[in-house]
Amino acid sequence: MVDLQDRPDLLVVNGTVLTMDEHGTVIQNGAVAVSGDSIRSVGPAEKFNIKGAARIIDANGGIIMPGLINTHTHAAMTCFRGLADDMDLMTWLNEYIFPAEARLSHERVYTGAMLACAEMMLSGTTCFADMYLFEDAVAQAAARAGMRAVAGEVLYDFDSPNYGSIDKGFDYTLELIDRWRNDPLITIAVEPHSPYLCAPDLLRRAAAISEEHEIPMIVHVAETAGEAEQIRKTHGKSPVAHLADIGVLSPRFLACHCVAVSQEDIDLLRAHDVKVSHNPESNMKLASGIAPVPAMQAAGLCVALGTDGPTSNNNLDMFMEMDAAAKIHKVSQMDPTVMDAGTVLRMATIDAASALGLGNVTGSVEPGKKADIIVIDTHKPHLTPMYNICSHLVYAAGGADVQHVVINGVPVVDDGRLVSFDAEAVMEQMEQIAAEIRGLHDWTAKRANTGAKAGKE
Amino acid sequence: MVDLQDRPDLLVVNGTVLTMDEHGTVIQNGAVAVSGDSIRSVGPAEKFNIKGAARIIDANGGIIMPGLINTHTHAAMTCFRGLADDMDLMTWLNEYIFPAEARLSHERVYTGAMLACAEMMLSGTTCFADMYLFEDAVAQAAARAGMRAVAGEVLYDFDSPNYGSIDKGFDYTLELIDRWRNDPLITIAVEPHSPYLCAPDLLRRAAAISEEHEIPMIVHVAETAGEAEQIRKTHGKSPVAHLADIGVLSPRFLACHCVAVSQEDIDLLRAHDVKVSHNPESNMKLASGIAPVPAMQAAGLCVALGTDGPTSNNNLDMFMEMDAAAKIHKVSQMDPTVMDAGTVLRMATIDAASALGLGNVTGSVEPGKKADIIVIDTHKPHLTPMYNICSHLVYAAGGADVQHVVINGVPVVDDGRLVSFDAEAVMEQMEQIAAEIRGLHDWTAKRANTGAKAGKE
Ligand SMILES: [Zn+2]
Ligand SMILES: [Zn+2]
Repeated sequence: MVDLQDRPDLLVVNGTVLTMDEHGTVIQNGAVAVSGDSIRSVGPAEKFNIKGAARIIDANGGIIMPGLINTHTHAAMTCFRGLADDMDLMTWLNEYIFPAEARLSHERVYTGAMLACAEMMLSGTTCFADMYLFEDAVAQAAARAGMRAVAGEVLYDFDSPNYGSIDKGFDYTLELIDRWRNDPLITIAVEPHSPYLCAPDLLRRAAAISEEHEIPMIVHVAETAGEAEQIRKTHGKSPVAHLADIGVLSPRFLACHCVAVSQEDIDLLRAHDVKVSHNPESNMKLASGIAPVPAMQAAGLCVALGTDGPTSNNNLDMFMEMDAAAKIHKVSQMDPTVMDAGTVLRMATIDAASALGLGNVTGSVEPGKKADIIVIDTHKPHLTPMYNICSHLVYAAGGADVQHVVINGVPVVDDGRLVSFDAEAVMEQMEQIAAEIRGLHDWTAKRANTGAKAGKE
Repeated sequence: MVDLQDRPDLLVVNGTVLTMDEHGTVIQNGAVAVSGDSIRSVGPAEKFNIKGAARIIDANGGIIMPGLINTHTHAAMTCFRGLADDMDLMTWLNEYIFPAEARLSHERVYTGAMLACAEMMLSGTTCFADMYLFEDAVAQAAARAGMRAVAGEVLYDFDSPNYGSIDKGFDYTLELIDRWRNDPLITIAVEPHSPYLCAPDLLRRAAAISEEHEIPMIVHVAETAGEAEQIRKTHGKSPVAHLADIGVLSPRFLACHCVAVSQEDIDLLRAHDVKVSHNPESNMKLASGIAPVPAMQAAGLCVALGTDGPTSNNNLDMFMEMDAAAKIHKVSQMDPTVMDAGTVLRMATIDAASALGLGNVTGSVEPGKKADIIVIDTHKPHLTPMYNICSHLVYAAGGADVQHVVINGVPVVDDGRLVSFDAEAVMEQMEQIAAEIRGLHDWTAKRANTGAKAGKE
């Protein structure tokens, strides 16, 4: 009992603790003590005095682990999930997404982001990195929901439905940085969309803000071969080489997707200690390609996982993303030993925290870190018996197996139910937004491609 | 109210009915009336007299659809799920699976199959096709669980831990056929393992039984390029051409995997009206390759989905399999329009029923078919709003969203809980089996490859 001189606010007990610390420590029948927003102690159950805790979470023999971290999404696109799938990118953008996004507002983005927070928290995600329009609404939603988030307004060369011209976009970003400074949950990032939608000057201004404010710079990089070709035509080199050339790569740079990259690009990313967000489900669904993640990891790059937005996935469940990541590279490399379960779990936890500059804050269950902890209920047919925790988490479990979620010391999901806000009210608001979006389309005609006809008799 | 002259036993109401009939009919605010084991009527809610039904299932605004059909698994391998992953096939087989399978018995296979039935029913699967040892135990388990199943004892050239020599294997199969004839839920199939483990004579004897008894013949075919090469060395042709050559292909033949097949093989399969079971998650995880399913479908082949066994997936959730099938071919073909959601749903329902010779029995919600019906709860953050039913089912929903399951007219999952048998007792029995299997290995050492160490302090 040595390490509990005073009463912890919260004790998570009666489970196997998968710490995700650098030694891969697993503690059978372990416990985690939380004081305020932080983890105070982690160890075997017998070290703790259960009666001394203000609140107990009983893991019921399940798994106690760090919350999952989604390093790339566009949360508010929950407004449009399933609106249009299985089609060419240009049809999707021009006929569906752009007309719908033209009607966005701060309020609608807030509702969409709240709904995304509900989904993410219920499926064990405790932190997400977001890029979208009206990003102050996303930061507000995450703060209200009780989720940790890295939020950044999307910047590009053309005018935005939110801020207007790019100068106003930088003003908006600087205001975000100012407004959310020292927030316990929210970090602001500077987020130019991509090298193909952002001129070198825009990218350099963003990099200067990233450096001055010591915040992440999050950018879509080389998502498709087509984009890479476009950059090559304009700038005479690969997207990564172009970004290196204009001097914007740094350890704070998070490059999302990185599908169309060569070994030379990988070496360049490594030389600048750039972090990578891998989004396999989106890359598969949109037919973007398969990022060479095993080669990136072999080169020593920090590669994290992200779902991308709910219109190109179509869920925000990080368990599904782990499963896809583990499998797609095996078949791509024709080698069943690549991307083992332990590696994939690190990509969704500690490596994801590092990718977002939060390596000292979250991503593992260790004393001194913020208490971002989830409990998995393993007493279910599909998780019985359990020979290997990592295998079950990556290949057999799903977001619906998450029983408890604690973020920054606060229980936000209790026994499978969201307790930090009223998800019912948010779903009602979303139905109103959806009713209007449906009105933008001749609905029954557009979905003929799914093979299902609407109405009958 | 014309079509309900007498009281139905069960009425499923208050949901959108996705019939999966040949017209792709969807009925907003529809209902399904069940009498005995069969669907009597399907239509708009106002046609039905709710007060007239003996029992009501309220879909609560969700989706009412046919149960999913898993066309290829080895259910009892739940005993070994997660025992060993991320390794070469031969290491996996020789060090883990063969030693563990040598200890199998009728009783253990029964327990493993019961556990698999629990998982499958809870995730919306109402029918499965199984190949394993001690298959009478699987048939018994399915019958006891209340699941529809196509069961067949695995046959190969070497001795089996169950029946011994191959002659006894055929005796065992004939006894199965006899014992389960006219069972309301169980169909027996004849199941030679594969052309690489079965000599032509074995395959011909199996085909003769399939023809005489009008039952399916289920075989692993061309799962890997290595196997195809082996057949080419031994028989001078591709596995499919070899099977055609020895005269065993027929409309009752279900070929599982079909990864290493050429366009000529596809044409040959089509010429014989062979059915295909596509198992994308297994093919990805084991690095077997990507089956050319779009080409098969373009050729007019009936292609159904299956999970393969829980050791090579590692779950039996058909929603995950649908998601993987929709995505892997998009990225493989670099075309986001292939394998749209509607096509994938048919592969998991009506096409799967046809593949198993049950096209007139199950696979769609139509009058006269057996009542194998599931209800999806769509009142959840990740399924709100819903623009397109098919998209949500394939890309956003999971097995945990299944609220009600009816098989052969009998409710087996009620409000998310299994009611047809005691899953807790089965889980307890499985823990005992697992304790012995763990003893076969130096457990902590073997899982070092996941990056997690067992024990601490
Ligand atoms: Zn993105
Ligand atoms: Zn198989």
